[in-house]
Amino acid sequence: MKERTQAKLEIDRDAKKPMARQIYVHFRAMILSGDFPAGSRMPSTRRIALESGVSRNTVMAAFQTLLGEGYLEARRGKGTFVASSVTLSAQPTAESAALPTFDYKPHRFDAIDFRAGVPDLSRFPVKTWRRLSREVWTEVAPLDLTYSQPEGRIELRTQIAEYLCANRGERCHPDQILVTCGATQAMGIVGRMLLQGERKACLMEDPSAADFRRIISSLGGRIVPVPVDMEGLVTEALPADALPAFISVSPSHQFPLGVTMPLKRKVRLLEYARRKKTYIIENDYDCELRYDSPPSGSLQGMDPARVVRVGTFSATLYPSIRIGYVVLPPELITLGREIKWFADLHNATVDQLILARFIASGSFAHYQRVMRKTYRRTRTLLLEALERHFGGDVEILGSAAGLHLCARFPGIKFTFKILNRINLAGVGVYPVEEHAIRKGRWENTIILGYGMLDTRRINVGISILKRCLPLQ
Amino acid sequence: MKERTQAKLEIDRDAKKPMARQIYVHFRAMILSGDFPAGSRMPSTRRIALESGVSRNTVMAAFQTLLGEGYLEARRGKGTFVASSVTLSAQPTAESAALPTFDYKPHRFDAIDFRAGVPDLSRFPVKTWRRLSREVWTEVAPLDLTYSQPEGRIELRTQIAEYLCANRGERCHPDQILVTCGATQAMGIVGRMLLQGERKACLMEDPSAADFRRIISSLGGRIVPVPVDMEGLVTEALPADALPAFISVSPSHQFPLGVTMPLKRKVRLLEYARRKKTYIIENDYDCELRYDSPPSGSLQGMDPARVVRVGTFSATLYPSIRIGYVVLPPELITLGREIKWFADLHNATVDQLILARFIASGSFAHYQRVMRKTYRRTRTLLLEALERHFGGDVEILGSAAGLHLCARFPGIKFTFKILNRINLAGVGVYPVEEHAIRKGRWENTIILGYGMLDTRRINVGISILKRCLPLQ
Repeated sequence: MKERTQAKLEIDRDAKKPMARQIYVHFRAMILSGDFPAGSRMPSTRRIALESGVSRNTVMAAFQTLLGEGYLEARRGKGTFVASSVTLSAQPTAESAALPTFDYKPHRFDAIDFRAGVPDLSRFPVKTWRRLSREVWTEVAPLDLTYSQPEGRIELRTQIAEYLCANRGERCHPDQILVTCGATQAMGIVGRMLLQGERKACLMEDPSAADFRRIISSLGGRIVPVPVDMEGLVTEALPADALPAFISVSPSHQFPLGVTMPLKRKVRLLEYARRKKTYIIENDYDCELRYDSPPSGSLQGMDPARVVRVGTFSATLYPSIRIGYVVLPPELITLGREIKWFADLHNATVDQLILARFIASGSFAHYQRVMRKTYRRTRTLLLEALERHFGGDVEILGSAAGLHLCARFPGIKFTFKILNRINLAGVGVYPVEEHAIRKGRWENTIILGYGMLDTRRINVGISILKRCLPLQ
Repeated sequence: MKERTQAKLEIDRDAKKPMARQIYVHFRAMILSGDFPAGSRMPSTRRIALESGVSRNTVMAAFQTLLGEGYLEARRGKGTFVASSVTLSAQPTAESAALPTFDYKPHRFDAIDFRAGVPDLSRFPVKTWRRLSREVWTEVAPLDLTYSQPEGRIELRTQIAEYLCANRGERCHPDQILVTCGATQAMGIVGRMLLQGERKACLMEDPSAADFRRIISSLGGRIVPVPVDMEGLVTEALPADALPAFISVSPSHQFPLGVTMPLKRKVRLLEYARRKKTYIIENDYDCELRYDSPPSGSLQGMDPARVVRVGTFSATLYPSIRIGYVVLPPELITLGREIKWFADLHNATVDQLILARFIASGSFAHYQRVMRKTYRRTRTLLLEALERHFGGDVEILGSAAGLHLCARFPGIKFTFKILNRINLAGVGVYPVEEHAIRKGRWENTIILGYGMLDTRRINVGISILKRCLPLQ
């Protein structure tokens, strides 16, 4: 017999852990580990009950399960014995006892966080949404609860297609819409779709969202940076000899710089895509929010056969709804649906139905109008605060649209040390450099998201920022 | 000048397509295509208004957009001209005009469908769910609407962990739970996780769910079949010389055969995994539904460090909720969360909060008890119908649990022709052979799912099946 000491049965009287189950788990472990060897006689249920202070019935229930599953065998008149071949003879591999901690940046709500892309959620029309949700749950049929189609519900796809045609000059049929779990899943699906063939070169804006590039790399794409200037992607720098899988751009409010691509560059970009017989991924998460002019026309509307448009409701509704979409060129529809099916079958049906009603009822358009005004006001406050505190020491980029702008401080270098100082002072700012492919060009520029900030936080935040910067 | 005829402006008076937007789209296309060449003078807004029968203000609004976006230039006193460099000179690549149709098997609700895995949705407690949904939407805070953590909400993870510990003898902490979009996404995440290293051999049950194998293959896994007999995976057939990335099993109700793995094989399987320092994926989508005995203990509970458990609420609640989960060994927690983050950030928050309340309130346990009784009754009806119509000509497998059983008809071969005949007669049955890796062993066996069928449908369905089979 082994010399390991038998662990004592300890009962946790928390009602959520049935005692019989705890006893079962305890003895199962003892048997599997060999502490109770095959063929050995089990202590009597009476003794276990006495020693552990639980009722004998509870112990018997646990034994019943162990007998039922084959850990124990009852021999008439002799007692209960451990069955044969139920000991795990191979030693367990080293197992880390403590759970590792995970270092996602927690969202500090007490801090003044200039994180980009987070909308103002205090004004979300919760009551309207609750009413629509109740309506949908009142009318729901078994058909809405069972498995559905990968492309998403036709009710929602129709609303999205109509919205894009009416507001963004896009040209699409509801069958070209693929509903996804946010823009992140959309980028993953589009990447997988366009990297199916031989072509692996992926032309991406430099700087551009680091997360998206990581998704593309993990799918086997080879990132080829194309520089961005004050008019977006520099089309003259598109490589003449490449055969790219795609070119990814955010023309209406470049991420992170916030600049807008003028029409002539859009035309040159489309011509390049046509010549190379490749696709453009148009990924503008906040293009609906434009403050000084109507939303700029989309690339998708200019050439629906060459452009794969990625969109999301994270910025225009709320992020945790996790609904985005792709507008697919007709020839990619089948492949897109197939990839979505093997990713997670389809988006949750009821959420799609509520969102479709929210758009169809006009609540979405109304909410967008309200928020556009709110954000325009917040943006002005931020611009004023920057002017007041920094004057000529700061240069602003990309303030015409979206939920963030960029601030460039010539002569300053946002090193880890400075960023850390700003963070410790309770302010979150995000370096553009983090999103740069070729490092070293944007060390003096930070992203300032303002979607969820109010006057007080903006003023305090910018004055703290000023205190932390080594200005002359 | 090109000889292409200028397309006539045709206005669709459907209120959902603003007329100014239609006019904009029309002229944008004419300019991009070169039908209105760079530098040419545009027709006057007055003339366009007259010819198309819309108001001049509407046409002017469209022109304003075209001017704003840079398609047109106004020259004082001379009229409006097409800007330079806004013609797409590269020809468009061939573009399929018609949208392709997509051949997912539509769910025929008029047919008698013995599809596996679809629960009875007519009894789902919609009112309770609606009430909980209203509660959550009443208490919702901005924090619930913004971006969240990849692992899912602690409220739901706590409920899942407690449920698994209390009902399935599993041993897990809420931090080991990763909330996913159903079992499909769970398998994708687990596959990606376990195929990160050098090992590419994936030991899978033969037969096993074809969709899951396809996901694993697409991730670069090499499928190695291990046969299944009436006691589940044949542990003696596990390859001695392999270094597998994982072994995937469904021990409590094998899919598709429905058989249950006895304890001794579970022990042998775990010993193999320990020796090979590999992981077991335990994927039992309907293990909670057991009719003749308590649910069999899980592999996860026997060795939480070696087993990755995949679960879903599709069978126990409703499929279109798209919520599943993974129970991760501690050393895989970080990697699992990271992969989920890059897949789609996290599951929709409100849905998670509603489900957490549904479980915490006891409604989930109650609903499971009700449905277990219902399914037991339906299963009995199906067994009786099979006995009545086929007697000794049929052999039943896997009827002790779950939402389906298998029927083996010695001497019958379910060819495409026979299956087609059955389908055309309005009955859906599913061949086991479709899920087989090595073909030819299960041609006489079909899967009969009974979750959503009633007495009448079962009797009619089985009598139609009988009519279609070439029995002696």
